[in-house]
Amino acid sequence: MNGKMKAVVKHKRGYGAEIQTVDIPKIHDEEVLIKVKATSICGTDVHIYTWDEWSRSRVNPPYVFGHEFSGEIVELGAHVTSVKVGDFVSAETHIVCGVCPQCLTGQYHICKNTKIVGVDTQGCFAEYVALPAKNLWRNPIDMHADIASIQEPMGNAVHTVLSGDVAGKSVAIIGCGPIGLLAIAVAKAVGASTVLAFDVNDYRLDLAKKMGATHAIHSNLLDPIAFVEQLTNGCGVDVVCEMSGHPTAIKQGFKMITNGGRVSILSLPTGTVEVNITEDIVFKGITVQGITGRLMFKTWQQVSNLLASGQVNIKPLITHHFPLGEFAKGFDLMIKGQCGKVVLHP
Amino acid sequence: MNGKMKAVVKHKRGYGAEIQTVDIPKIHDEEVLIKVKATSICGTDVHIYTWDEWSRSRVNPPYVFGHEFSGEIVELGAHVTSVKVGDFVSAETHIVCGVCPQCLTGQYHICKNTKIVGVDTQGCFAEYVALPAKNLWRNPIDMHADIASIQEPMGNAVHTVLSGDVAGKSVAIIGCGPIGLLAIAVAKAVGASTVLAFDVNDYRLDLAKKMGATHAIHSNLLDPIAFVEQLTNGCGVDVVCEMSGHPTAIKQGFKMITNGGRVSILSLPTGTVEVNITEDIVFKGITVQGITGRLMFKTWQQVSNLLASGQVNIKPLITHHFPLGEFAKGFDLMIKGQCGKVVLHP
Amino acid sequence: MNGKMKAVVKHKRGYGAEIQTVDIPKIHDEEVLIKVKATSICGTDVHIYTWDEWSRSRVNPPYVFGHEFSGEIVELGAHVTSVKVGDFVSAETHIVCGVCPQCLTGQYHICKNTKIVGVDTQGCFAEYVALPAKNLWRNPIDMHADIASIQEPMGNAVHTVLSGDVAGKSVAIIGCGPIGLLAIAVAKAVGASTVLAFDVNDYRLDLAKKMGATHAIHSNLLDPIAFVEQLTNGCGVDVVCEMSGHPTAIKQGFKMITNGGRVSILSLPTGTVEVNITEDIVFKGITVQGITGRLMFKTWQQVSNLLASGQVNIKPLITHHFPLGEFAKGFDLMIKGQCGKVVLHP
Amino acid sequence: MNGKMKAVVKHKRGYGAEIQTVDIPKIHDEEVLIKVKATSICGTDVHIYTWDEWSRSRVNPPYVFGHEFSGEIVELGAHVTSVKVGDFVSAETHIVCGVCPQCLTGQYHICKNTKIVGVDTQGCFAEYVALPAKNLWRNPIDMHADIASIQEPMGNAVHTVLSGDVAGKSVAIIGCGPIGLLAIAVAKAVGASTVLAFDVNDYRLDLAKKMGATHAIHSNLLDPIAFVEQLTNGCGVDVVCEMSGHPTAIKQGFKMITNGGRVSILSLPTGTVEVNITEDIVFKGITVQGITGRLMFKTWQQVSNLLASGQVNIKPLITHHFPLGEFAKGFDLMIKGQCGKVVLHP
Repeated sequence: MNGKMKAVVKHKRGYGAEIQTVDIPKIHDEEVLIKVKATSICGTDVHIYTWDEWSRSRVNPPYVFGHEFSGEIVELGAHVTSVKVGDFVSAETHIVCGVCPQCLTGQYHICKNTKIVGVDTQGCFAEYVALPAKNLWRNPIDMHADIASIQEPMGNAVHTVLSGDVAGKSVAIIGCGPIGLLAIAVAKAVGASTVLAFDVNDYRLDLAKKMGATHAIHSNLLDPIAFVEQLTNGCGVDVVCEMSGHPTAIKQGFKMITNGGRVSILSLPTGTVEVNITEDIVFKGITVQGITGRLMFKTWQQVSNLLASGQVNIKPLITHHFPLGEFAKGFDLMIKGQCGKVVLHP
Repeated sequence: MNGKMKAVVKHKRGYGAEIQTVDIPKIHDEEVLIKVKATSICGTDVHIYTWDEWSRSRVNPPYVFGHEFSGEIVELGAHVTSVKVGDFVSAETHIVCGVCPQCLTGQYHICKNTKIVGVDTQGCFAEYVALPAKNLWRNPIDMHADIASIQEPMGNAVHTVLSGDVAGKSVAIIGCGPIGLLAIAVAKAVGASTVLAFDVNDYRLDLAKKMGATHAIHSNLLDPIAFVEQLTNGCGVDVVCEMSGHPTAIKQGFKMITNGGRVSILSLPTGTVEVNITEDIVFKGITVQGITGRLMFKTWQQVSNLLASGQVNIKPLITHHFPLGEFAKGFDLMIKGQCGKVVLHP
Repeated sequence: MNGKMKAVVKHKRGYGAEIQTVDIPKIHDEEVLIKVKATSICGTDVHIYTWDEWSRSRVNPPYVFGHEFSGEIVELGAHVTSVKVGDFVSAETHIVCGVCPQCLTGQYHICKNTKIVGVDTQGCFAEYVALPAKNLWRNPIDMHADIASIQEPMGNAVHTVLSGDVAGKSVAIIGCGPIGLLAIAVAKAVGASTVLAFDVNDYRLDLAKKMGATHAIHSNLLDPIAFVEQLTNGCGVDVVCEMSGHPTAIKQGFKMITNGGRVSILSLPTGTVEVNITEDIVFKGITVQGITGRLMFKTWQQVSNLLASGQVNIKPLITHHFPLGEFAKGFDLMIKGQCGKVVLHP
Repeated sequence: MNGKMKAVVKHKRGYGAEIQTVDIPKIHDEEVLIKVKATSICGTDVHIYTWDEWSRSRVNPPYVFGHEFSGEIVELGAHVTSVKVGDFVSAETHIVCGVCPQCLTGQYHICKNTKIVGVDTQGCFAEYVALPAKNLWRNPIDMHADIASIQEPMGNAVHTVLSGDVAGKSVAIIGCGPIGLLAIAVAKAVGASTVLAFDVNDYRLDLAKKMGATHAIHSNLLDPIAFVEQLTNGCGVDVVCEMSGHPTAIKQGFKMITNGGRVSILSLPTGTVEVNITEDIVFKGITVQGITGRLMFKTWQQVSNLLASGQVNIKPLITHHFPLGEFAKGFDLMIKGQCGKVVLHP
């Protein structure tokens, strides 16, 4: 498809982004072109927007960023047979090689040659996006475009929470950004008996309660370790989902976990963290699980079913909507932590 | 403790039972004496009451039967240190040997030398019951005695449902007796996206809906296989919990399961069942899981937490209450299938 | 590639096959053409050769059959990038759809739309075979062509044995056809402490010992259940791999398994089998696992590593070699059970 | 039993120990008295002997230390029924409470109230030792006393290696002390295709080869990370068993593990270790498993079966024998790392 489109472009090596008119992407034989209906802002996009250390070493402006979206297929590459024009889709954002040992054994989410949409390739903060057909996930026809866009981060939450048993267990969610908030709802939906949410932001602790947390604790006002100690009669929690990336919070997670418990880490702390391996991992006999991406497409199936059945309701999480051109308002809210998910409409 | 008590005694090799005054049981050094607050009727008790083939070969009247209960400890054996007088308890009904290979590897529920309370030993349809201290489970002080009594069969349901993954999956419960009904509530609580209940009894299908089934199907009015085929676009369900014991229903379970699915069987069909191993097990690559008892005491912990958190609400299941002396009314309802759980109060 | 080649053709709906000169297959854009170096006879091929009930309902002569092989890529389809001309390869024989729920969740081996090479498509008993590039497995350059050909059935054995824990356990292999014999070697290599082989064919029981069985039992001369009972002090074996397809042997498998054990079934019994679900599955709390195909490509990786490391030595299993034109000699031996694996060389 | 016995006593808060004549221990009702046949020196005993920081904070001289042994039961406590006089036994060294949440759910090895034989209680470097009957493991009558004594540390190795899949995988053992050396033999026995041993002690690297390592690497002479990189074509190893406790070696373990791999840590590093959680755990999607003790008694069953079957041969590991009175020679060798296992005979 020829023509021009509006897109949010990371235009330079520095703070910010700008709306520009750019060419509609050309598709390769294995790709499709999608008209974007809704696209949401991820923490990763905020890193790129604010031009932090990680983004300086990883991304190459100018390019279109963004990777969470839903939309309608408008054009198919020559070799594409698995989907058709008109399909309502979202997409897995890890583009994988298919030939490394991890891919050959079905562990696509940890492919050694992963490229990430909107980070290493052109993204979806735009009217159109081009993607490999094999990355697409077909949505139910009656799913709201905003909800459909948020399946990708919900996949992170589902992958984290379900990386071990949860039913009848106590679960601590450390860090109540959007994925942490999603993890609260997921943990409740899959049978956690207690869900403790920890953060230092009142707005997000309030959202944590709305998403189903049984306890929402401001970590600067109450000592998280003492709180857990008292609540569990000294036993500790069964599962910790670490989503804060903060060294102090990570250490608190290791202290509050019970013997034989599981600490699943999705966050990306900057620099190294001092871990007391002997006391906190070995003597406790715990499992530490690193989490990246989502299982392709087992996690997508779980997300889709949890949403379709109403077991998880993510509407309270979507707090703000803006036209694509007003993206800066969304980024400002994200930076301040005064929002749940922000959805942009091209 | 010396004295007499009222008890429901299986008094003869034949139909029925009768209320009698008998000695309060003497306890051994490893046992405790419990004053029964509530005791509920299990399908096994109905087998003994109606004197079916299985009970004729297994039980030895006269004896006190019954095995589901909650109560208060009133006396401790000489060697007992793990509980104290006044504790509010329920009990695991498998008395295990502790020395067979299964026990030595922590698989107590499949001990080769299991004795079952109220089947192989004196039971709890009485004012008092004597039990090994190691079989006790301490209840929260504020749990209702009726609910506490039903933890044992709820343990069967939890063990069955959680013998594999459930979150985001479709689950068929075949057979809506009390344990099937409990399994419905458990499946919903741990994240099943669809819960199909199958039975041929309208009363129980109605209860199935109250317990949270998304679909309640009368298997004589709708073809279960065709129903699943249509609902799942030909895919089949992910999990079958077989709780009917009926050969036709079992075969339907094998036909409705998807490739790679799980069929967990708690029921005890009489005689052999013809299974199409090639088509229904091998080509489909499914897992068939036999379920007996409850994990000691992992399942009890799950049950306790699911109840305490409100994730599972079993109140709708308790449809009838009678004084112990009116036990016959309860058995009549159970035989007719016109009840959920029936609780007796000594 | 144009030209003619020799191939073993299932030429008619009836017993046997014949060598013919046919066209070298044309490849599609996603396929490659392979020059076959070695091809081995599977039990499935014998079913087709003898024209049994299953083959009458499934295959459509005339066509080239055979599905186990190794060879060298000589031509690439237009879209193929994952392999190159000259690569030494074997192939997964399940051609899967990639879009059903099973494929989307990485369970390709139980794809609902599977086509099997040499059954539903043209096979490899020929000088050349055309296959989808995505089905290929690249072999180490120094692997012998005969060994490479046998990786596919070894994959069945590995998939069966490793469908649960084995280390330090007792394993019974029921049925010592080629895959059963491979399973013996695999079980030993992954730490089984006892490997019992059962069959009624002395030739194969002798091979069973060569493959590492600690006990080889002729099921007509010794009662298998009594033998296990005595050997295990009444405990039973931990794992049964059922590879005979015989109803009596299957029932023996269910009787010899210990409580909590695993029965993995790869065989394809004709008709239904009467199973005592209550006594043999439920009260024992066992797991029955249906096994089909191999995990793509996790099992292939395991096979490759077990062979390369010398942990499994399958040379004793390859008892006969023939030129492709003498295929009938190989089939005769297979029908009589007087062989391990038979390899044909085009 | 009244009388005196010889014992190695940690006699003071300082370096060393001395042989003394002390009272034969009195047994409680739940205990048995065992005549020690063989007792072996563990790294923990060396910590106590050399009076390091950990032992200063944990043990209370004077007392008899030592916890690995085999022997014969000579006296039973009043309540003991599970064993009898004359039984040949070894023992689990974790004395657990039986009532904490971990014990109640069968996770005895991570009991929150664990006492360790020879650390928190009187040990087995003596002619007699008293132990709870529930801690005993009965040995085959024909097992050599020295081998039987080493089952306890072999249990650590088995627990570590088998805390995830191993068959067909590459395994790195970092640290070739006695448990590391045992882990090498176990990994080979359960199907590891490659077993890399890392240490900085030539004596122990030589033993590593004897125990079955496919590669024995001196970490100061070859860069471990580069070695793995080259050997695995840049993929990394599938499993790391960390048994060195050295921060540099631990970091190397995290660098050499492949995406999705497993790092099982049995060692007890002093102080905290800086971990790059983002790069080494999260992005790689690995599992870190803390390992303490042995599963009661699943691991003991595995150890017993691996030894009885000959799948694991630990004779090469037992390099030195001394009479109990010459214990100091054994400790000197252990301190210098110039031995495998050292066995003392009372």
